[in-house]
Amino acid sequence: MSILVVGSVAYDSVTTAQGSRQDALGGSATYFAISGSNFAKVGIVAVVGDDFRPEDMELLKSHYVDTSGLETSRGKTFQWAGEYSPEDVNSRQTLDTQLNVFADFEPELTQEHRKQPYLFLANIDPELQLKVLGQMDERPRLVAADTMNFWIDGKRDALTEVVKAVDVLFMDEHETRMFATPHIDSANTVKAARYILSLGPRMVIVKRGEHGVIQFTEDSIFVAPAYPLESVVDPTGAGDSFAGGFMGYLAATGDLSPSAFRRATVLGSVMGSFAVERFSVERLRSLTRPDLTNRFHEFTKLSQFDGLKDDETLPWREDAGTGK
Amino acid sequence: MSILVVGSVAYDSVTTAQGSRQDALGGSATYFAISGSNFAKVGIVAVVGDDFRPEDMELLKSHYVDTSGLETSRGKTFQWAGEYSPEDVNSRQTLDTQLNVFADFEPELTQEHRKQPYLFLANIDPELQLKVLGQMDERPRLVAADTMNFWIDGKRDALTEVVKAVDVLFMDEHETRMFATPHIDSANTVKAARYILSLGPRMVIVKRGEHGVIQFTEDSIFVAPAYPLESVVDPTGAGDSFAGGFMGYLAATGDLSPSAFRRATVLGSVMGSFAVERFSVERLRSLTRPDLTNRFHEFTKLSQFDGLKDDETLPWREDAGTGK
Repeated sequence: MSILVVGSVAYDSVTTAQGSRQDALGGSATYFAISGSNFAKVGIVAVVGDDFRPEDMELLKSHYVDTSGLETSRGKTFQWAGEYSPEDVNSRQTLDTQLNVFADFEPELTQEHRKQPYLFLANIDPELQLKVLGQMDERPRLVAADTMNFWIDGKRDALTEVVKAVDVLFMDEHETRMFATPHIDSANTVKAARYILSLGPRMVIVKRGEHGVIQFTEDSIFVAPAYPLESVVDPTGAGDSFAGGFMGYLAATGDLSPSAFRRATVLGSVMGSFAVERFSVERLRSLTRPDLTNRFHEFTKLSQFDGLKDDETLPWREDAGTGK
Repeated sequence: MSILVVGSVAYDSVTTAQGSRQDALGGSATYFAISGSNFAKVGIVAVVGDDFRPEDMELLKSHYVDTSGLETSRGKTFQWAGEYSPEDVNSRQTLDTQLNVFADFEPELTQEHRKQPYLFLANIDPELQLKVLGQMDERPRLVAADTMNFWIDGKRDALTEVVKAVDVLFMDEHETRMFATPHIDSANTVKAARYILSLGPRMVIVKRGEHGVIQFTEDSIFVAPAYPLESVVDPTGAGDSFAGGFMGYLAATGDLSPSAFRRATVLGSVMGSFAVERFSVERLRSLTRPDLTNRFHEFTKLSQFDGLKDDETLPWREDAGTGK
């Protein structure tokens, strides 16, 4: 193993413009693990109920996900129901949330889990995120976390501790502004990201759904587009699939240089783009190496243009304008 | 001269999170001409009232904009008032529109104007756009047009004729979907752009405000980010400044190859990013060549990452997953 993820394993009921699914396998840890397991061994820390289907456990195992930290409790698996706007895939409404066994989730890491060099704290209660981080034997090589508006509203102090403690923070654009707004003078993403960086993380990845992501560090900004798809079937899990590709790339290569982080962001975007092509993990689970390579090449072409060569200048009319 | 633009010259009253301006110089043709005149000679076809300030005329002339087509009519200049959401610079509300002399605008091109090789039909009544195109002596080398939701709602047939007649269409993302929706099966930007391309244009540039633009052709997609600014003072005119940089680059170089179109899109993004840094044309009018070159380099860094070299592969766990 090399990446540990703590998060949710859930049954999702989702309606989008393209159809709907009842009780389909979902949850942040699920998407992350299935995405990341293409690149590195992922261990999952989460809880499911005794209704968890054997075939779903089998699916995780068939991806060589370490499920020794996937506890089964008496009761029902976490359930989420949501609906995406037919006009705007970036906009969704939660119809129902039943925490079920997740309500009493108290992650307890095994000896082996405590040694993992890459840790992803998926979107759960920031107090649990801190508890998991505190259980690690030593500081992992890289700690990343995701969160959501619910925790910004309800547990800002604990969330701030998480933000201070991680290397990489994932947040969606609206949440980034929401989190920073009391501390900055306008609802501006760049200012919000800079504020978050000032708290400690070396990188903030601002998720913008179908508009891609922006990766902020203290001295650089990298913008990666989302892959323009003709059909977004189900946006659920895109962010966690992104994180799985991102952490997977870094863990597989062991490279934490700026250029590796950019590639990891692109590979994350690739994985997010696959995730949304079908419901649940239907597309992710059947991914092949050529699928991955082809889309990575497509991404490269997507944002490529000719920068200026050393001896080249842009056209400019010296006679135009005042004072030129 | 080499680029002809037909559009509006206006006085704008704008409120944003950063402040407000009353009766500041604006209008689609103004932004386009001041932006584009850095690269190529621009002639403007528009109408103003007898309240048009001499210093504003002087400003256009000082940028060597050809104002022989800028008619002065008895009455007041077109006035627009709007307010941008403090939470979302992509969202604005029109508070007041007074067409004034623009209500009776009937563009009549001079002999010289009719010969220009580059034509930009800025956002005006599509019937006027068609009338201008019909007055050209011969088909210009490149015809581009912009429009807005008002004409999609009110003059869809005339607008469809414009779309069929141009080489490059600029539309914002929401408008792209709105225009295509009766003809495609979901509110998807890629499908909407493909529908528009099927009508005739060789390129559709989908404007996404602070999320940048997507350039669609029949066989390629190019995504250019917007420059992440710490302070967006006034988004008014960003799209027309983009178009000015875009057409300016193409006209100055005479290069209409795919790579030139990509660069033109980046230069357009650069010009749009300057336009929004201050109110009205305050930033655009004082632009220097080093400003331009520096930001073009910044843009290059913004989206740069290492693609795969010929002998390089992405990490992939052959043992993971089912059926691999």
